[in-house]
Amino acid sequence: MVVVRELFPLVGVDVALFCVDDDGLKVLLVKRAEDPYARHWALPSGVLKPHLDDSLMAAARRVLAHKVSVELPHVAEVSTFSGPTRDPRGWSIATLFYALLPKDKINALVRNKVEAVQWVSATSTRHRLAFDHEEQLQAALRALRSRVEGDVLPLHLLPEKFTLTQLQKVCEAILGRALDKSAFRRRLKGSTDLVELDEYERGPQRPAQLFKAREGFTF
Amino acid sequence: MVVVRELFPLVGVDVALFCVDDDGLKVLLVKRAEDPYARHWALPSGVLKPHLDDSLMAAARRVLAHKVSVELPHVAEVSTFSGPTRDPRGWSIATLFYALLPKDKINALVRNKVEAVQWVSATSTRHRLAFDHEEQLQAALRALRSRVEGDVLPLHLLPEKFTLTQLQKVCEAILGRALDKSAFRRRLKGSTDLVELDEYERGPQRPAQLFKAREGFTF
Repeated sequence: MVVVRELFPLVGVDVALFCVDDDGLKVLLVKRAEDPYARHWALPSGVLKPHLDDSLMAAARRVLAHKVSVELPHVAEVSTFSGPTRDPRGWSIATLFYALLPKDKINALVRNKVEAVQWVSATSTRHRLAFDHEEQLQAALRALRSRVEGDVLPLHLLPEKFTLTQLQKVCEAILGRALDKSAFRRRLKGSTDLVELDEYERGPQRPAQLFKAREGFTF
Repeated sequence: MVVVRELFPLVGVDVALFCVDDDGLKVLLVKRAEDPYARHWALPSGVLKPHLDDSLMAAARRVLAHKVSVELPHVAEVSTFSGPTRDPRGWSIATLFYALLPKDKINALVRNKVEAVQWVSATSTRHRLAFDHEEQLQAALRALRSRVEGDVLPLHLLPEKFTLTQLQKVCEAILGRALDKSAFRRRLKGSTDLVELDEYERGPQRPAQLFKAREGFTF
C-alpha cells in the first residue's frame, strides 16, 4: 500500500460543522474509533469513494450523513490540504468543507463508527486534534468570518423563522465581537436575502417581527 | 487503468496565470499537445507527482515551471473541481490555483510539451476550453476580483517599482470598471502594504512618486 501511495495519493474530505447556540459558535468534534489517531478528537472526515460520490462535496455530505446522521446542511468548500506528511498512511489530499447547522437541528445528531461526538467552542477547542485538523479549523473559521464580514448573511445557522435580534447574535458569535445595532439594521435594509413575514414572536419585550431566508438563498 | 480509477481518482492541478498589460487583464492559454483534448486550448495543467511534489501548490509551481518556464509567480488556491465526468480518463480531481505575473516578466515565457501558448483577454477568451476550464477560469476571476474588492492590493501584478496610477489601472483591469481616483487614493492611505520611495518616474506629466510592496507582502 505504501508503494501505491507514491503513485496514488489518499484522497479524502474533512468537514467543520458549525452551529451557534446560547454559548456562541460551536464546532462538532468526533472521537475517532480507528487508526490513525484512534481515540483522538478530530473533525468528521472520510475517504473519497469514487463509486459512491459524484464530487468531493458529495463525499462530504455522505461522511456527515454516515458519521453523525446529518442530512443536507449547507456545505461550502474552504480549501485543500495536501502533502506527504499530514497523514501517517502516506501522501494525502483532504478537501476541507464547512457546513452550517441550524440550532434547532443540533439534537438530531447520532454517532456511527466514531466513539463519541461533542460540540465544543470553535474558538477555544482545548483539544489537540488529529492530523492537521487544528489548522483546518482555523482555515474554516477564517472562511466563515470573511463571508460574514463581507455582504453575506449566515441564514443557514438560524431556524426557518427568526428575528433580526437572533440574526445579529449569530453574526456576533461568528465574528467574536459585538455589532452596532443600528449599523447592522441599516445593512439588513439593503439585503434581498431576507423575507419579512406577517408574524411576530411574543416574549417579555414588545413582539419582534419574524423573517425567513428568500427561496433559493445560498450562503 | 479504468478499474484503478474507480479506486484511485486522477489527481491534478490547473493554473489560471494572469497578467495585466495595456489591453487589460490577460490569462495564459496553452494548446495541448497530448490527449485528452489534444490541440484544444486549455489552462496549464498537470498531474500530481507525489514523489516530486510536497503539496498541490508545489505541483502547480512545477507545472508552470515545466510548461511555460515561469518560476515562482504568486500562487493562491481557488477551489477543487471533481467528479466522474470532467475528464474522459475517469474520476478526477483538479485543484485550481491562480497565479499572478508582473507585466515586465511576460516575455520570459517559453513553451514545453505544449503546441503553443498565448495570452488572451481573461473576460472574453473566444476559445472553447478543454475539460471544465471555462468554468475554472470564471471561478479564478471571481476569486481574484473578490480579493481586490476587499482590502487586498494586487501588487504581484506590478513591476518592482510602480506609480499609484499604474496600481489603479491594474485594479481597474481586474474589476472591469473605472475607480474614482480620490476614493482609491484614500483607500491606499490606510494600506500598510505600500512603501513610499524617494524616487520619481519622469514623463510628459509632472513626475510621479514610485512605490514598492513592503517586504514579505502576500496577496
